[in-house]
Amino acid sequence: MTFLEQLQQTITNHNSLLCIGLDTDLTKIPEFLHQEGPDSVYYFNKDIIDATSELVCAYKINIAFYSAFGEHGLKVLLQTISYIKDTYEHIPVILDAKRADIGNTSQYYVNEAFDVLEADAVTVNPYMGFDSLKPFLDRKEKGVIVLCRTSNEGADNFQELDLGGKPLYMHVAEKVIDWNKKFGNCLMVVGATAPHQLQKIRELAPDMFFLIPGIGAQGGNLEATLKAGLRRDKSGLIITSSRDIIYASRGEDFAQKAREKAEELQEQINRYRI
Amino acid sequence: MTFLEQLQQTITNHNSLLCIGLDTDLTKIPEFLHQEGPDSVYYFNKDIIDATSELVCAYKINIAFYSAFGEHGLKVLLQTISYIKDTYEHIPVILDAKRADIGNTSQYYVNEAFDVLEADAVTVNPYMGFDSLKPFLDRKEKGVIVLCRTSNEGADNFQELDLGGKPLYMHVAEKVIDWNKKFGNCLMVVGATAPHQLQKIRELAPDMFFLIPGIGAQGGNLEATLKAGLRRDKSGLIITSSRDIIYASRGEDFAQKAREKAEELQEQINRYRI
Repeated sequence: MTFLEQLQQTITNHNSLLCIGLDTDLTKIPEFLHQEGPDSVYYFNKDIIDATSELVCAYKINIAFYSAFGEHGLKVLLQTISYIKDTYEHIPVILDAKRADIGNTSQYYVNEAFDVLEADAVTVNPYMGFDSLKPFLDRKEKGVIVLCRTSNEGADNFQELDLGGKPLYMHVAEKVIDWNKKFGNCLMVVGATAPHQLQKIRELAPDMFFLIPGIGAQGGNLEATLKAGLRRDKSGLIITSSRDIIYASRGEDFAQKAREKAEELQEQINRYRI
Repeated sequence: MTFLEQLQQTITNHNSLLCIGLDTDLTKIPEFLHQEGPDSVYYFNKDIIDATSELVCAYKINIAFYSAFGEHGLKVLLQTISYIKDTYEHIPVILDAKRADIGNTSQYYVNEAFDVLEADAVTVNPYMGFDSLKPFLDRKEKGVIVLCRTSNEGADNFQELDLGGKPLYMHVAEKVIDWNKKFGNCLMVVGATAPHQLQKIRELAPDMFFLIPGIGAQGGNLEATLKAGLRRDKSGLIITSSRDIIYASRGEDFAQKAREKAEELQEQINRYRI
């Protein structure tokens, strides 16, 4: 099954467009978990996953949060992904890594994301152009999620620059639509902080899936995002949330509170999908 | 000492603008080294470093070549950097990682590059704009090397797009010059395959250092690059070469042959610095 087939199936079975980001920081997890020793982040992730697995269409893991802790961080990342694969094999795992390099080097990043870490999809950065992404695109069963219009403030610096009457992010969207023709395995990152831009990209790509960060801590508006971004079939978006859900409580009830937050967001999203 | 001070000192002491890329692939190193077991890439790197340390201004290590091998790759990367730091502490280490994410996540990449791996400089991708690079820029003693005009074919896709009479890469260069005002710790990546563009960026930034990939295997012309890119003081470039040097021989003499290739390139470069 390809990433997109798996995603589609989980969206349907769980009736959810919600994707929880396991961007776990040791300093932010409940203190009582620290007694688990160096693997406490893994145990935290495991409990969050067990509490929320029925509510999500995917999990997203940002590799930076693990790479910052060297060999041990990598071990915890591998443990977390293995746990999802072994226990909830129907739920796809998105590696948020924003990789890209010249073609022959990107192949090694492909190995990192898909072979070592066994992710089902990965985020990539378009700045270096087609050959830097080709090794990812060639893995036709995987999802390649290209940064288009990001959710952060600095997105203005270059993505909004006008090139011949069109902002850079629209040029990127056009290229991604083109690259998608070969295997249909591309998605785009479009931030919830930019609903107007999201609408323009949706008009250009009526059938594609978008990964949407920026709801919650970053200030993106859910209603505006869904109105601008949902496809006609009321799907086509992967709404990610991390901090608001996984750090909902620092007490013994952290997993239960995370579940409640996730349920709440899932329902809020589904109100616009009827 | 800052990265740029250390770089400047090594350029002077070694009379060299050459930077060797330790982009080592297990399948391309001499077969007899495989008997060293899983650490053979480390022993290969160590011998290359010992043979070339007097000829370089820096070593560049592309993390992708190591991340592709998971926990063991990370171990070999850490070993290699430690070896340089312990044995040739005057030679700066550039981590080629092309990182960037939203601000609070980039902080974790900063930890990866500078704290876990102890690199002296790191390459970063500008697509997400200022806040995605700020955590790197705030480490004022480190070098932040921003992709500007890359050496690969796909650089055309977006970097050459015209925005109000100026290509995107020139807009990036202008921003980097601006970001550099705070701590003077920025550099730019400009590919040797684009000497005309290099000249335009040099005119805009007469005093900055550029990291130059693309000589050799990628087809960049050394003479055109040096004529277009050298500063008035005949410095300001870090010319990187990897495959042509480190794989000069697959025999027992691989380190000696690498040294000869490095010496040759160092001399070719210095001919234009008189």
